[in-house]
Amino acid sequence: MDPSDPRHKAIPLPYCNAFCLDPPNPQNSRSSFGYPAATFQVVNRDDGHLYCLRRFDNIKSVNPKIASTVLEQWASIEHPGIATLHQCFVSQRAVFFVHQYIPGTRSFLQVANPPTLSEPVIWSAICQMVTVIRRVHGARLALRTLDLRHTLIQMDALRLRIFVNCLGIVDALEYESRKSLQELQAEDMRNFGRWILSIVTGTNITISTDPQTLQNCERYCMQNYSRELRHFILTLSRSQNPPSILDVSRALSGRLMDELDSTQLSLMRTEKALSGEYESGRALRLLLKLGFVNERPENGANRRWSQSGDCYVLTLFRDYVFHQADGAGNPVMDLGHVVTALNKLDAADEEKIVLSSRDGKSLMVVSYADVARCLDSTYHELCSGSTPPQALQRRQQQGQPY
Amino acid sequence: MDPSDPRHKAIPLPYCNAFCLDPPNPQNSRSSFGYPAATFQVVNRDDGHLYCLRRFDNIKSVNPKIASTVLEQWASIEHPGIATLHQCFVSQRAVFFVHQYIPGTRSFLQVANPPTLSEPVIWSAICQMVTVIRRVHGARLALRTLDLRHTLIQMDALRLRIFVNCLGIVDALEYESRKSLQELQAEDMRNFGRWILSIVTGTNITISTDPQTLQNCERYCMQNYSRELRHFILTLSRSQNPPSILDVSRALSGRLMDELDSTQLSLMRTEKALSGEYESGRALRLLLKLGFVNERPENGANRRWSQSGDCYVLTLFRDYVFHQADGAGNPVMDLGHVVTALNKLDAADEEKIVLSSRDGKSLMVVSYADVARCLDSTYHELCSGSTPPQALQRRQQQGQPY
Repeated sequence: MDPSDPRHKAIPLPYCNAFCLDPPNPQNSRSSFGYPAATFQVVNRDDGHLYCLRRFDNIKSVNPKIASTVLEQWASIEHPGIATLHQCFVSQRAVFFVHQYIPGTRSFLQVANPPTLSEPVIWSAICQMVTVIRRVHGARLALRTLDLRHTLIQMDALRLRIFVNCLGIVDALEYESRKSLQELQAEDMRNFGRWILSIVTGTNITISTDPQTLQNCERYCMQNYSRELRHFILTLSRSQNPPSILDVSRALSGRLMDELDSTQLSLMRTEKALSGEYESGRALRLLLKLGFVNERPENGANRRWSQSGDCYVLTLFRDYVFHQADGAGNPVMDLGHVVTALNKLDAADEEKIVLSSRDGKSLMVVSYADVARCLDSTYHELCSGSTPPQALQRRQQQGQPY
Repeated sequence: MDPSDPRHKAIPLPYCNAFCLDPPNPQNSRSSFGYPAATFQVVNRDDGHLYCLRRFDNIKSVNPKIASTVLEQWASIEHPGIATLHQCFVSQRAVFFVHQYIPGTRSFLQVANPPTLSEPVIWSAICQMVTVIRRVHGARLALRTLDLRHTLIQMDALRLRIFVNCLGIVDALEYESRKSLQELQAEDMRNFGRWILSIVTGTNITISTDPQTLQNCERYCMQNYSRELRHFILTLSRSQNPPSILDVSRALSGRLMDELDSTQLSLMRTEKALSGEYESGRALRLLLKLGFVNERPENGANRRWSQSGDCYVLTLFRDYVFHQADGAGNPVMDLGHVVTALNKLDAADEEKIVLSSRDGKSLMVVSYADVARCLDSTYHELCSGSTPPQALQRRQQQGQPY
């Protein structure tokens, strides 16, 4: 948002750097909760993390006591499928809800053309939602917002991941509701059935969806998906006494295990990728050190860097790593050679290499361990003689020359 | 192993680079399968991957047909908790089994002091084993080796991970066994109960464990763990008709969901670490390119690299990134500056920076995008004029000068 945007004033400290997440031209100004609201991505100055902040204006029924009660109930609910509630407070005559911001996700309804999901993906989403409901119901709470509009998704080629957003908001806005926990949880289960039909059809189906749309959606589901899925949806959404989340999880134990297997597999794949990337982290650190020490202008006149000095080996090593050439003087761009040499340097290998000066007149036989020792000592020497960046910054702020 | 070690001859091609995995002084020469055997970590020359190779000598009952039948049954069983069977063949009058090698794992019994595991860790291990048994029984097979000696573990601060090893070996060695699949699977379930008691107590309990040891182990379990766990173990190990894996998974659906949640959480944590490491991969690639192009000796006489040439900017940029100094000429070692500059270079940012020559007499105002363009074109020029490393290698082999 533009720095002069009046909406910045709507964000109380310590939240700043707001970025509006509402669509630019909303068709109606009421949020999905029935009240006017605004949603921002913000940075918390105190911890530097991103959050999702929602502001509800003109809600008279929520006082600070209610806000802190709701926060207490929900802040402890951490789960890989839930955007955790971090703050709930009253300020500027408005109610604020601050949830975890999960990068890379979109609301299911923001996806322009809702994807047609295959049956295994649907069951995977169901399993993930079962774990969320189980966590919430197990804490003697109810979701009350099981709805496509409050479902965030993350999709890649292999998986669909589901996150439930906006938890705790209905609890605060409708704090005086007289429904018992049991009723609310049963309502959750019926909404769960509607939610599944929603992700199957890409249409948001709620309790107030008209019968014709509902019928069309059910027919679509019947024609394209298994009887088992349809039966599961109807058992949840149609019954006066829907099964509890524990009944559902017992019935789905096979599907849950499929989900466990696929998650385990993703974990192993990710760990493998991570181990590969750690390698490049090690190589990067070496190149940074070499970058700091080689060709420093102040070393031009330094005896240690002259041809007889002990640091000369670092310049020659850099040439050895990067400036290979064939007999005719054509460059050889062999990344394998670079990576191998850096790995051996990192391991301080005892293998010996021949370094030659640029004119080819003098040769030097050193081990990687020698080079590593030299690099380390030179780098530390450089660090110990350096000005800390903070001191430099302070001096710059005081107008001293750079 | 020493290159002259006679055991190298025991490894048929394409397997090479063998490393013996058997303990140096085995107390008896018979393997855990009751036959003399040797185990090696090997490299497959064809794909370059590590495998675990087992050689059984003097097994007359296994012919090539049996070996290929067993391989066919097991090779398709891939699962995050299983070391997959890759090969099973008869050669040199011996039977060979080649399984996936899972780095970082040890056999449960190799852990010198078997750790005392907390109850949640035990249940997590049980859930993992349930998914393995379900996969195997679902493929109309039986494990037949559910035993601490064939259980590999991977432990870190947060999790214990379980892998079942040696699958398919008993199927081949005891191919003529007359037991029905149903009997074998029921035997698996009873062994599952014994296996749980084994990981609880750190003692390998099999069907032939003497009653006194068994009683001690059961007492230990009763004193230190919940009734639920003890009941679960006894239901499996003591009954003539143990529950099937499907019964068990229905009964454990709550535990399975805990396991799913914790796996999901590990996955998210690992992905976060991965995204951080990808950053250093990007920086590494830039530094490699800069390393290749800067200070090349052949560019000393090149007009483009002289002070008026278009490549001079790359030398100055390197100085700008790495050789910052304060007013007094002391080095400033600010890694933040380096990372920021490299990130902006990677993004080809339009931000302009002032580069100054070493003598400070000439200044140059360029954007990161200019530098990026220059780096790219110089690097590609260098590559297009280079000798491919393969050609160089070939020439070296033919005795031509380097």
